[in-house]
Amino acid sequence: MSAGATAATEAVERLADPVRRARVVLSVVGEPGDPRMTGLVSELGPAAVLAALVDRGRHDELGDALAERLGTADPEAVVGRAARRGIRFVTPEDDEWPTSLDDLAHAPYLHERGGVPVGLWVRGPVRVDEMSDSAVAVVGSRSATTYGADVAGEIAATVAAAGHCVISGAAFGIDHAAHRGALAVEGRTVAVLACGADRAYPRQHHDLLEHIAQEGAVIAEAAPGGAPLRIRFLARNRLIAALTAGCVVVEAAARSGALNTANWAAGLSRVVMGVPGPVTSAPSVGVHQLIRARDALLVTGGDDVLEAVGAPGAHLATRPHEPPRPRDLLGFEEQVVLEAVPRVRGAPVRSIARAAGMSPDRVAAAIAGLHRAGLVEHAAGRWRQATDQPPLFDSG
Amino acid sequence: MSAGATAATEAVERLADPVRRARVVLSVVGEPGDPRMTGLVSELGPAAVLAALVDRGRHDELGDALAERLGTADPEAVVGRAARRGIRFVTPEDDEWPTSLDDLAHAPYLHERGGVPVGLWVRGPVRVDEMSDSAVAVVGSRSATTYGADVAGEIAATVAAAGHCVISGAAFGIDHAAHRGALAVEGRTVAVLACGADRAYPRQHHDLLEHIAQEGAVIAEAAPGGAPLRIRFLARNRLIAALTAGCVVVEAAARSGALNTANWAAGLSRVVMGVPGPVTSAPSVGVHQLIRARDALLVTGGDDVLEAVGAPGAHLATRPHEPPRPRDLLGFEEQVVLEAVPRVRGAPVRSIARAAGMSPDRVAAAIAGLHRAGLVEHAAGRWRQATDQPPLFDSG
Repeated sequence: MSAGATAATEAVERLADPVRRARVVLSVVGEPGDPRMTGLVSELGPAAVLAALVDRGRHDELGDALAERLGTADPEAVVGRAARRGIRFVTPEDDEWPTSLDDLAHAPYLHERGGVPVGLWVRGPVRVDEMSDSAVAVVGSRSATTYGADVAGEIAATVAAAGHCVISGAAFGIDHAAHRGALAVEGRTVAVLACGADRAYPRQHHDLLEHIAQEGAVIAEAAPGGAPLRIRFLARNRLIAALTAGCVVVEAAARSGALNTANWAAGLSRVVMGVPGPVTSAPSVGVHQLIRARDALLVTGGDDVLEAVGAPGAHLATRPHEPPRPRDLLGFEEQVVLEAVPRVRGAPVRSIARAAGMSPDRVAAAIAGLHRAGLVEHAAGRWRQATDQPPLFDSG
Repeated sequence: MSAGATAATEAVERLADPVRRARVVLSVVGEPGDPRMTGLVSELGPAAVLAALVDRGRHDELGDALAERLGTADPEAVVGRAARRGIRFVTPEDDEWPTSLDDLAHAPYLHERGGVPVGLWVRGPVRVDEMSDSAVAVVGSRSATTYGADVAGEIAATVAAAGHCVISGAAFGIDHAAHRGALAVEGRTVAVLACGADRAYPRQHHDLLEHIAQEGAVIAEAAPGGAPLRIRFLARNRLIAALTAGCVVVEAAARSGALNTANWAAGLSRVVMGVPGPVTSAPSVGVHQLIRARDALLVTGGDDVLEAVGAPGAHLATRPHEPPRPRDLLGFEEQVVLEAVPRVRGAPVRSIARAAGMSPDRVAAAIAGLHRAGLVEHAAGRWRQATDQPPLFDSG
């Protein structure tokens, strides 16, 4: 028996557990992130919800809506086909369940989507529970600029190289750049889809998704075969946010779906970060709005992201600065005296003292220190500034 | 008698006031922003400080340092020459004194500069007291990019057109672009110099400074003739910050003097703003640091600045957004149904209801609403989505 057939048999056998079987059925008949479904399941448990639906004991809106789908649901066939495609179903009862998703039970709904998914369909070697706590979402516009794609790739590569899993969608633009950045450093990366985990959307990313499924994981809330309905992207975005420690928005126009992901991340108390760009660039408008509203922390690259999300091996971002220069170490009087020392023709101490507004004694002491620091030079009884000094401060 | 001669005579006559005369002398012999001087003057008053210095009753460090300069100070000659150049001396006793500068008495010192100036040397028609409360500083790097210069010019033009005075230095780059932006809309603009108000530094900006002196004002703390010593830029920056309601940093490298101005503005509780740029652009590094540390509010243009600094005619920045689209106005069920309506070949209500997981009755009601909104169309007993619809949401 092939590995796929063995996996299929095992997957079907596990449906002997009524809770697991109920979750599969609910996943198949329900709409991802429909809060009527997710809310009831969190409250009553999947088996009770399914039993109520099957009994038609509940003549409410949800039961009514699902009745037709329930009649044709075949959970054994679904998990069997999924297993043969290498897709496993991960539920809150499994060790692999990422407890980070449970935060969704208490997060506000957005666009009438929300709640803990009844299960996740996962394809790929990365264990969802092991990557989630320190994962970093890198999201942004499909119509990214080369600037945005470059920065997204750098951020993904840096955080992946530091041991964090990268999470994104599978769209053109920033999503694509993020996965490529992580894969380039042989890091872990995860694509969360709005359609079934067996589908490639957009189809041009078929090979990318296959690559991710081999090295990382492809995750979906919709059951296999599920179509990439637009409303499912709104539900999907909450999973990207919930599965991560922080969410970086690289480029996002004013109405970008990436802002929806950022809103989910904020509602889940994840670290929300944004990469600025030129104020003249439309794909940066949404990010600037986030930062301006203090809903997102400005980050300029992977090091900033690592600092913001922290880590087991807590990383300190290297702040851009230059090494201290001799002038930075000067005391106040030495600075004043140095300013008063001529640059071209030298001057005697008494003249420098007059220019500095200090006594000759103090000037002489300061000059001695400046001479030791190589900042002034002596010629024929006169002092002048040493040549080739960097400026004390950009005086712009 | 010429206007200049008349002004000179009047300026000299006003030195009959011992407080005024003391301020001129202290301005001539002291170093701008030397906190030993400014602190004593705030504490004891200018006449007492000068008397103590002249009497040599104070054998402390300050008296020692200034003794030599005091011997040669000629305040009548200084104010006379200044008046003939069109430069007036404005003191805290004058109506024109901007009380905003008094905030410096309580602000922390930076780089051992600080305190209220003993007076301001002013050249130009703009009254300092009338412009200061709502003025906006636009500062940044001398080595600005064309992007930075464009944004600085736009911000200056927008705030000047709204009635705010623009304040900056006189350096190349952002300073220059800010003044030009304000002058282009015939707005008020003020240059605060590190040298005397009679000097042009950099000399390439001689014509710009003459233009500003005709339309706005050129201001200096250093007495006329004073050289642009580098340490005086640090003192000058505190005046730019103090004279404004808010300070916008457009481009600033990691060590830019513009960051010093921003630090002064923060210490003075002014609104500090920063314009982002590409994270790959060195002249934006300092601004990103400010925003990242939440020391500055991100602004994307003049409208954002007007919103941040408020105004007598309080301005509301127009946030970038698109007009609401028909889809935005849909209820939840209508959205779900719309998703379930095929795009190409039509489908009957019953089939759509199955796809949507809703009862046919509810779907029929939703379809009717969608039809009224022009989002679905009917053909041969089947429904399909209307053509040419904008997306519900950027699903990236």
